[in-house]
Amino acid sequence: MAITYSTAQIAELLESVSNWGRWGKDDQRGALNYITSEKRVAAARLVQTGETVSLSLPLPTRPARDNPHPVIHLMIRSGHVGHPMGSFGCADYFAIEPHGLATTHLDALCHHFWRGKLYNGFDSSEIDFQGAHKCAIDVARDGIIGRGVLIDIPKVRGCDWIEPGDAIYPEELEAAERHHRVQIGEGDVMLLRTGRFKLRRTKGVAAIAGNAMPGLHASCLKWLHERKIALLGSDAVSDVLPTQYEAPLRMPIHTGTLVMMGVHLIDNADLDELAEKCAREGRYAFMFSLLPLVLERGTASPANPVALF
Amino acid sequence: MAITYSTAQIAELLESVSNWGRWGKDDQRGALNYITSEKRVAAARLVQTGETVSLSLPLPTRPARDNPHPVIHLMIRSGHVGHPMGSFGCADYFAIEPHGLATTHLDALCHHFWRGKLYNGFDSSEIDFQGAHKCAIDVARDGIIGRGVLIDIPKVRGCDWIEPGDAIYPEELEAAERHHRVQIGEGDVMLLRTGRFKLRRTKGVAAIAGNAMPGLHASCLKWLHERKIALLGSDAVSDVLPTQYEAPLRMPIHTGTLVMMGVHLIDNADLDELAEKCAREGRYAFMFSLLPLVLERGTASPANPVALF
Amino acid sequence: MAITYSTAQIAELLESVSNWGRWGKDDQRGALNYITSEKRVAAARLVQTGETVSLSLPLPTRPARDNPHPVIHLMIRSGHVGHPMGSFGCADYFAIEPHGLATTHLDALCHHFWRGKLYNGFDSSEIDFQGAHKCAIDVARDGIIGRGVLIDIPKVRGCDWIEPGDAIYPEELEAAERHHRVQIGEGDVMLLRTGRFKLRRTKGVAAIAGNAMPGLHASCLKWLHERKIALLGSDAVSDVLPTQYEAPLRMPIHTGTLVMMGVHLIDNADLDELAEKCAREGRYAFMFSLLPLVLERGTASPANPVALF
Amino acid sequence: MAITYSTAQIAELLESVSNWGRWGKDDQRGALNYITSEKRVAAARLVQTGETVSLSLPLPTRPARDNPHPVIHLMIRSGHVGHPMGSFGCADYFAIEPHGLATTHLDALCHHFWRGKLYNGFDSSEIDFQGAHKCAIDVARDGIIGRGVLIDIPKVRGCDWIEPGDAIYPEELEAAERHHRVQIGEGDVMLLRTGRFKLRRTKGVAAIAGNAMPGLHASCLKWLHERKIALLGSDAVSDVLPTQYEAPLRMPIHTGTLVMMGVHLIDNADLDELAEKCAREGRYAFMFSLLPLVLERGTASPANPVALF
Repeated sequence: MAITYSTAQIAELLESVSNWGRWGKDDQRGALNYITSEKRVAAARLVQTGETVSLSLPLPTRPARDNPHPVIHLMIRSGHVGHPMGSFGCADYFAIEPHGLATTHLDALCHHFWRGKLYNGFDSSEIDFQGAHKCAIDVARDGIIGRGVLIDIPKVRGCDWIEPGDAIYPEELEAAERHHRVQIGEGDVMLLRTGRFKLRRTKGVAAIAGNAMPGLHASCLKWLHERKIALLGSDAVSDVLPTQYEAPLRMPIHTGTLVMMGVHLIDNADLDELAEKCAREGRYAFMFSLLPLVLERGTASPANPVALF
Repeated sequence: MAITYSTAQIAELLESVSNWGRWGKDDQRGALNYITSEKRVAAARLVQTGETVSLSLPLPTRPARDNPHPVIHLMIRSGHVGHPMGSFGCADYFAIEPHGLATTHLDALCHHFWRGKLYNGFDSSEIDFQGAHKCAIDVARDGIIGRGVLIDIPKVRGCDWIEPGDAIYPEELEAAERHHRVQIGEGDVMLLRTGRFKLRRTKGVAAIAGNAMPGLHASCLKWLHERKIALLGSDAVSDVLPTQYEAPLRMPIHTGTLVMMGVHLIDNADLDELAEKCAREGRYAFMFSLLPLVLERGTASPANPVALF
Repeated sequence: MAITYSTAQIAELLESVSNWGRWGKDDQRGALNYITSEKRVAAARLVQTGETVSLSLPLPTRPARDNPHPVIHLMIRSGHVGHPMGSFGCADYFAIEPHGLATTHLDALCHHFWRGKLYNGFDSSEIDFQGAHKCAIDVARDGIIGRGVLIDIPKVRGCDWIEPGDAIYPEELEAAERHHRVQIGEGDVMLLRTGRFKLRRTKGVAAIAGNAMPGLHASCLKWLHERKIALLGSDAVSDVLPTQYEAPLRMPIHTGTLVMMGVHLIDNADLDELAEKCAREGRYAFMFSLLPLVLERGTASPANPVALF
Repeated sequence: MAITYSTAQIAELLESVSNWGRWGKDDQRGALNYITSEKRVAAARLVQTGETVSLSLPLPTRPARDNPHPVIHLMIRSGHVGHPMGSFGCADYFAIEPHGLATTHLDALCHHFWRGKLYNGFDSSEIDFQGAHKCAIDVARDGIIGRGVLIDIPKVRGCDWIEPGDAIYPEELEAAERHHRVQIGEGDVMLLRTGRFKLRRTKGVAAIAGNAMPGLHASCLKWLHERKIALLGSDAVSDVLPTQYEAPLRMPIHTGTLVMMGVHLIDNADLDELAEKCAREGRYAFMFSLLPLVLERGTASPANPVALF
C-alpha cells in the first residue's frame, strides 16, 4: 500500500491543501474558525454521563530517553518548620520547553514554516527574539471547545499498538470510521491513537526512544483537508517518522497542517484511558476542551485536554 | 457593618467550617467532590449560544510593580534564516512562579497550612524539597468542569470597582444573588469580581500595587461553607487585605477554604469581559472549565479558565 | 570641553581604531593577545602584601529599579529534617541573564556588532539560536590575568562620584595617570571608577536607575587604542549615556572596544573597596585576575574579578 | 591494603579531624583561613613562565549519562537581521544546578551536614528556603588564591587512569609526593587527579556513568587534617564510591572535609592538561586561583580554577 512521492510531489501536495486566505488575509486562527458557536453548542449536547477523561501525560520532571530536557520543578518554600513563611504556605517554580517529546502540548501555527512562510503567508521573520508576532499560541486564548472524535488504529487492527515507523493511510482512517460508527467532519477535533504510550508502558521507554514514530502518511493530507478538521492530535507527533523526505519537508503532516491548512496540532496526548472509555461506552465522539495558557508570542502551550462524556 | 474577631475567634471560626473527613480520611480532592457527574451534565445543559470567554490574564512576561518576578519567555529558535533548524520551525522556553500576583492561577489545597496541617489533616511535612506528596495540583487532573456563577460586586454597588482594602460581607453576597437572579449552591464555582483589573486598566498599576486588596471578610467563611461551593475564584486573592490578623492567619479566607473546607482557589482571574457578557445576556450562570496542567507534586498551576454560554 | 561628532564622524573614528587582522584573520581573542606570558609574570611580581579585593557585586537576586530581571536562586534541598537527602546535604539552582545592569559581568567580543560584523570581520550571523560560533566568552577560558590599573575619576576630581550623564575625556584620563603616578600601557587591564555604586549606596537606587550613566566620551577611543589596553572595566558600562547618537551607534565605546579593537569589557564592577585600598596603599597598579565561566557559545559570563596587592 | 571501618569507627574518625572552634566560634571560612596573605605572596613568587592552564570543563549544555540535568543555555537575541536590537547586539541566559556531576564547581561548606550540624557546629536549619544563612559560597568572595599542588595518581602508578571504585590510601599520597618532589603543607590547594576524564575521553561516557568513582579512602582524612590543606579538588568527587557506608556517611571525605575540617571541595575539575604541563615542566606546584561567583546564600559556585606557572 506504500505510496512514495518525490519531494516535488510533496511540495505540490502541500500547495493543494492550502487554506491561505480562506478566512481573510489577516486571519491567524486558521481551522479553529471551523469551530463556530453552533459547533460548541452541539458539542455540549453530546454530554450524557458527565464523566471526564484527561488526555495529558504528567509533565515530565525526570530525565529519560524520550525526555532529554525535563521540566525543572523546584520548591520555593516547603512544609517544614523553622522558617516564617514556610510555616503557613508553600510555593514552587517550574521551567519548561513545551515542545518536548514527553510533554502533552499544543503547537501554535507559527511552529513550522515552509519556504520562509507561516500559515496564511506571513513571513517567518515575524518570529524573532521576542517570540511570534503572528500565529502565536494566544490566538486560541478563548479555548478550543468542540466535538472530539477518537480514531483508535490499534483497536481497528486488533493489536495493542502500531509499531514505530508504521504508516497510516487514508483507507485506514475510513476503516476506523466504519468500525467506530462515527464520521469525521467539519470543525471536529480528530484524535489519532497509535498506542505509543501503551507500548511504552508495556516494554519501557527504550521501545519508543528512537527516531521512529507511528503516524499518518503524507497522503492523508488531502483527506484531512477535505474533512475540514479543526484540530489534529495524536499520542505521537501525527507524522509517521522517518519519512523518506529531507528537512524542511521531513514532517509533511506538520507542514501541511500547521502551515498550509492552519490546523493546530496536539503532540503526545495520552489517549490510552480515552480508548478504553470509548470502547466501553461504544461511542467515539464526545465534548472536547483544551484551554491553552495565554502566552503571548508563544510557540506552544503545555496542555491538559479533557474529554467529557 | 465591620465585624472584628479576635484571633482566637478566627481560629474557632476556622474549625467550624472544617470538611476534614467528609469524603474519607484519605481524600485529597476536597470540595471538588461536590462536582458530581450529574453536576457536569447540568452544566453542559446551560450552554445556549456557544460563545466563550477566557478568564485569564496573559502570562506576565514583563516586570511591573505587581509582578516583580515575571515569567521568563525565551526563544530557542526563531524564524530568521541562516540556521538549519530555524529555516523550518521555531520553539521557545518559559519559566514561571505560578503564585505570582499578576498570574491567573489555581492554588492547590497544599498551598496553605494551619497549625502544621493541610486539608484533611495531612501533615505539612508532606511538602518537602520534591514537592507536595499530598493535595498537589494534579488531584484536579481530570479538569474542573461545572456550573460557574459570577458575583459582580461593583455591578451591585453601581460603581466601577471596589477599592483596595474594602471588605465584602455575606449580606452583600446575598444582595448580589438577588440582583443577578441566581443562587449559589452545592458544587458551584463561585467567581467574585471586585473590579481590580478595571481599576488597573483605568488608573494604572500603581493603583493596585500596594498590599491592600478588595475581597471577602472572614465572616463569609460560614456562608461559603453552607453553600457548599466547589471552587472559589476572584480577580484579586479572595481575601480582603489587610485583615487585622497576624501570620499565619493573615489570610483567613485562604486558610478557611484551602485548609479547612478543601476549596481550591483561583487567584487573579480576569473577570472584566465576563462581567460585560453576563450583564449583556442577563444571566450570571454558565458552563465553567478549568483544566490545570498535570504537574505532579505542584503547588499551583497557571490556568486559563473559560466560561461557555 | 564637550566634543560633538556627526554620526559619520563616529563611524570614521571607529574605523580608525580597528585591530581587525592584527593577530591574524582567524583570531577571536582580540586585545587579550596583548597579555603575553611576560606580562603575567610581571603582574605576579607586583604582589607585595598578599591582600585581595573582590570587584564583584553580589549576584542580584531581588528585583530593583536597576535590576528588572533578577537572578533566580532556588533551593533544591534545604537543611530541614524530614526527608532523606535533606538530612545530610543541600543544593540549589540559579538562572541568570548575565548582561543585567546590576550584575558584574564580562562581555564577550560577540556581544556587539557594527554593520553586520563582529570583531575581526566575522559575520553577525555567526550568532544564531545555538549561541555565538565566533568570539564567544570561552575564548578567555584560560583566564585573564595581568596588570590591573585603577583610574579613579572622583578621586581626581575631589568628589564622591561622577553624576549620571557626565562624560570623561582623554585629558582627564591623563590627569588621573599623573595623580595616581601610574601610566596605562600595552596589555593593561584598565578599571575606570565613576563612583556609581557610591552614589547608589549614598542616595539609593533611584539615583542611578535612569538611562543616564557616567562614562567615557567617544573621543577616548583613540586614546584607548594607542595605549593598547587588553581589557576595560567600569563600575558603570564604560560608555557615557546618553550619547547624542542613535542605535546602532548608541554606545560608541562598546562598539569601538568590542567590535573594532577586540577589547573585552567588564560592566558593573564594584570598584569602591578597590579605590579605598589604592588610596590607602598609594599605588594604583596590582595583579588582576578574572576567570570567566567556560560557557561555550556564551555572550558573557558573570564574573568575580579580584585584585591582589 | 583495604581498611574497613565500622560506621561507629567512621563517626569517631570524623570527630578526630574536627576544626570546629579553631578559628573562633563564629568562623564560616574554615580552612581558607590557612591561606594567609603571606601564603598568597609566596604563591605569586612561584610564577616563572606566565603560562596558564584552566582546570574547568566546559559548562555541560547537552544531556548525557553523566549529566542528566544539563545547563540550559538560551539566546535572548542572536545576530540575525530583522529586529532592531538584534542588529547591533546579542545576549543570552543560562540556568544551572551547580552540583551536577559534569560541572566543575566549588562546594560551599554548607553543602553537607553531619548529625544536623554544619561546619563549626552551625545548625543545618540555617539552610532554609532562602538558601544558606551560614557557610554559603560567598564566604570565599575575595577569591581563593594560593599554592596549588597536583597529585597525579595515574602518573605515579604508571597507568592512564584509576578505575571507578578504586581507592587511594595515605601511603599512595606520600608516594606521589616523593615522585613529584613536592610536599603538601599548610594552606595548600591539593588537586587529586584520578584520570577520570582521560577515561571518559578514551572510552566514552558509558565508562564513567555508573555510581562508582575513583577517590580517597576514608583513612586519608587524618592525613589531610595533619597536612592542614586549605582546599581539596579532584577530577571526580574526592570520595571513592561506593564506600561501604550508608547515608548520611556515604561520602566520608565530603563529610570529613566540608563539615569537620571546614575544607571546601572542587568537584569535577579537569586536570588532564594540568597533568601534562606538570610532567613537562617537572614541577607540581604553581600559583592557583579560583574566584567563585558571589552568590549570597548559595551552596556552590560553578568555577573556572586556573593554574599559573
